[in-house]
Amino acid sequence: MKVVIVYSGGLDSTVLLYDLRLAGHEVRCLGVDYGQRHKRELRAAEAICRDIGVEYRVADLMSINPLLGGNALTGELQVPEGHYTAESMKQTVVPNRNMIMLSVAIGWAVSLKYDAVSYAAHAGDHTIYPDCRPEFVEAMDRAAALCDWHKVRILRPFIEKTKGEIVRLGAKLKVPFERTWSCYKGGERHCGKCGTCVERREAFRVAGVSDPTHYATPTVQ
Amino acid sequence: MKVVIVYSGGLDSTVLLYDLRLAGHEVRCLGVDYGQRHKRELRAAEAICRDIGVEYRVADLMSINPLLGGNALTGELQVPEGHYTAESMKQTVVPNRNMIMLSVAIGWAVSLKYDAVSYAAHAGDHTIYPDCRPEFVEAMDRAAALCDWHKVRILRPFIEKTKGEIVRLGAKLKVPFERTWSCYKGGERHCGKCGTCVERREAFRVAGVSDPTHYATPTVQ
Repeated sequence: MKVVIVYSGGLDSTVLLYDLRLAGHEVRCLGVDYGQRHKRELRAAEAICRDIGVEYRVADLMSINPLLGGNALTGELQVPEGHYTAESMKQTVVPNRNMIMLSVAIGWAVSLKYDAVSYAAHAGDHTIYPDCRPEFVEAMDRAAALCDWHKVRILRPFIEKTKGEIVRLGAKLKVPFERTWSCYKGGERHCGKCGTCVERREAFRVAGVSDPTHYATPTVQ
Repeated sequence: MKVVIVYSGGLDSTVLLYDLRLAGHEVRCLGVDYGQRHKRELRAAEAICRDIGVEYRVADLMSINPLLGGNALTGELQVPEGHYTAESMKQTVVPNRNMIMLSVAIGWAVSLKYDAVSYAAHAGDHTIYPDCRPEFVEAMDRAAALCDWHKVRILRPFIEKTKGEIVRLGAKLKVPFERTWSCYKGGERHCGKCGTCVERREAFRVAGVSDPTHYATPTVQ
């Protein structure tokens, strides 16, 4: 199958990239610059794609940022610390981010006559991010099949997986975890304290996989 | 109701804007710059909104244009002439354009806590543009209701209307047709020969409404 992957350079989507590629699919990766303060993820994505010889393109959607209002990922609010499922993490929701990213990826897939688009929504996302829920992806899958005479599917192999299970799969596939970027703060090192860092640490721990990440705070808070 | 309108400055979406506004809805308009050669439509949209005191914003999506491949609207192919339903008009399909525009409009609506997004897909579009079909809009409507905890609906009041019926409605609502822009060529005047000009002329004729457009070619070819 030929697949466009919505690829952030983070842990989940890097495991997805390795998984689809090692299964023999032809893949291209799409990054999206929506003005996130953690632009390091775009550099991580580019470097990983370069190393494995996968085409990587970035859609610059900076101009729509003012329409989407203030949120912690684009710099108008502070990135909250603590557990991922906490109420405060709702500040990291960028309105309709996944539909916007998927719609551009689907447009690219239609123009390439590719079969599918894939993204790494997983079970741990559901409580915070409504656009990672299975029913949302099902509606988008139907829209993707109807938006053009050439049908595109949406693959979401991780939708029922926990992040721990994704780490375990990544370890099996020899994913270079140390090169992936999760931290929402986008500093020199992973902060270790924001929601996504806490979630990343926990995922390695529950998976029983050694965490190669250099956190700025050495122990879980 | 509070509604974000995907607004091109063309005939159909201007009638939609007048229709929703005169029905008492609070509206804001979103234009999309996707590199179309007929940028005049953006200027028409801005001027019409300014006159009636409606907020108009433009999302600059030029950067994704290379991902969407060559088509007649963004300048890599010639704009075909002749009837709108002809095979040649398929060159004017921009892959997944409506899903991309709707997704940005939905993101804006979510951030404003608006109730709905509307666009002017109509019955005449269905054969050429798959993303104007009722089943596509239904899938998007479902996705829009699920993409955030705040639900957004998609209104498509013209989906079963012909363009002639839209013109008749516009005449009743006193839409300033002469200020709307349809022509895909984007010259000084409407060319009168491209698919969308032919369709525009025909719509006024079947509606029995006087056509105030100054075409470069005075009679229908």
